[in-house]
Amino acid sequence: MLLIKVGGGKTINWEGICKDISLLISKEKIILVHGASYWRDKIAEKLSIPVKAVVSPSGVSSVYTDEKLMEVFLMTYAGLVNKKFVAMLQAKGVNAVGLSGVDGRLWIAKPKKDILIKEDGRVKLLTGNLTGRVEKVNTELLNLLIERNYLPVICSPAISSEGEILNTDNDLAVAVMAESLKIKKIVILFESPGLLENPEDEKSLIRQINKEKIEDYFQFAKGRMRKKLMGVKRAIEVGVEIIYMGDGRLENPVFSALEGKGTVIR
Amino acid sequence: MLLIKVGGGKTINWEGICKDISLLISKEKIILVHGASYWRDKIAEKLSIPVKAVVSPSGVSSVYTDEKLMEVFLMTYAGLVNKKFVAMLQAKGVNAVGLSGVDGRLWIAKPKKDILIKEDGRVKLLTGNLTGRVEKVNTELLNLLIERNYLPVICSPAISSEGEILNTDNDLAVAVMAESLKIKKIVILFESPGLLENPEDEKSLIRQINKEKIEDYFQFAKGRMRKKLMGVKRAIEVGVEIIYMGDGRLENPVFSALEGKGTVIR
Repeated sequence: MLLIKVGGGKTINWEGICKDISLLISKEKIILVHGASYWRDKIAEKLSIPVKAVVSPSGVSSVYTDEKLMEVFLMTYAGLVNKKFVAMLQAKGVNAVGLSGVDGRLWIAKPKKDILIKEDGRVKLLTGNLTGRVEKVNTELLNLLIERNYLPVICSPAISSEGEILNTDNDLAVAVMAESLKIKKIVILFESPGLLENPEDEKSLIRQINKEKIEDYFQFAKGRMRKKLMGVKRAIEVGVEIIYMGDGRLENPVFSALEGKGTVIR
Repeated sequence: MLLIKVGGGKTINWEGICKDISLLISKEKIILVHGASYWRDKIAEKLSIPVKAVVSPSGVSSVYTDEKLMEVFLMTYAGLVNKKFVAMLQAKGVNAVGLSGVDGRLWIAKPKKDILIKEDGRVKLLTGNLTGRVEKVNTELLNLLIERNYLPVICSPAISSEGEILNTDNDLAVAVMAESLKIKKIVILFESPGLLENPEDEKSLIRQINKEKIEDYFQFAKGRMRKKLMGVKRAIEVGVEIIYMGDGRLENPVFSALEGKGTVIR
């Protein structure tokens, strides 16, 4: 089984990804996880809802999710992008089913409403953040669909055990899913050729990483790439054998990643 | 099996509906279908996207769906309202799974892009309308979920056999689902006590309708109520035995309808 995670950037080649999947699906079972951050920010701006980026004391950035932003989140992730992605796959003959982490308690998260952030050089406590960490996955529902040849297309948000909708980190959720479903192979696509030594220079691509030495590469990962690498680290810890990080903007994003054109961690 | 259709109005008591369902679900299998028209119109207005209501030559009103409005449709139906409804049910212990008609080709519709409309007393041809009529339902997917005690929470849009996303008439889709799943009992909830002899007078409730004589009651149904009654007529034609039309604003909307407090068609 292959787990493919697609970032939510503007220039991602969704059509190319769908085409690759339509060719791959006859050979192996696939689960998709996607983001929609570009659309979230665009719709939030049009609705005059602020998207507040916060940074943890250890330098990890995330988005502060209040009730208004959660509504935009539901609209763009679970509505707009999820269903367009599903229809695009269906148009190519792939029987995709879109699900958020809320549906069937697919992603159960532990609320983490009060977070420490670093602002203007000082550490502050921020409360009322509708986020959580995915701790459990409804593998029964996923297996039910996969066994009948449906391709699950999954997105945030998650749900708490009390039924509260919570924003969550996709990268960590992917690792938890990989563990639960014993997935050994992950493809991660985003708007970059792979992990770069210098984020400003697309030619500084790191081609191979020994999974035992993943810690050594955190120095190259800033901002959102840092969260991706934290997800990768967790995935390795729970038994994933190979992770392909690749460019989602290429003509054949999935095949290119699998051919090792991005960063391969094994 | 009970099919419950909930209208997308502002004053619908979603919490009450979820509470009723949490009590009913131990006794029988349930499928939910919902609208979100109030939220669609609200978000469309905030995004400055026009919602153009059109009227057919026979007097049936609908919404003209272009690409921009379809995006609002996906955001509010499949995103915002569907996932909030699912989480609300989950919070009450009901294992709900939200699906649009696009997911797993749940609702396959035949495109009907060119429609005749009546405007300023004249009949005109309107093209490029992203709508269709549901003709087929993926009963395999629904049965798969229902057998494992999931409650499907379904909303428009539908999908064409070519994979195009199409707005569709929920009332007709409900009848097609009832036929495919051999459902004999439907509850329809909206913002009115039931079918009224005079739409301006909530005391003019019609309590009982003989299903053989449904045609006689079209004279009382204007605007959107006309579509609801057309759906009811179709549901009867395909074998539904009893339909409860009830007030979605009450404290116990589902129980009240089942107790015959609205309009009962049998």
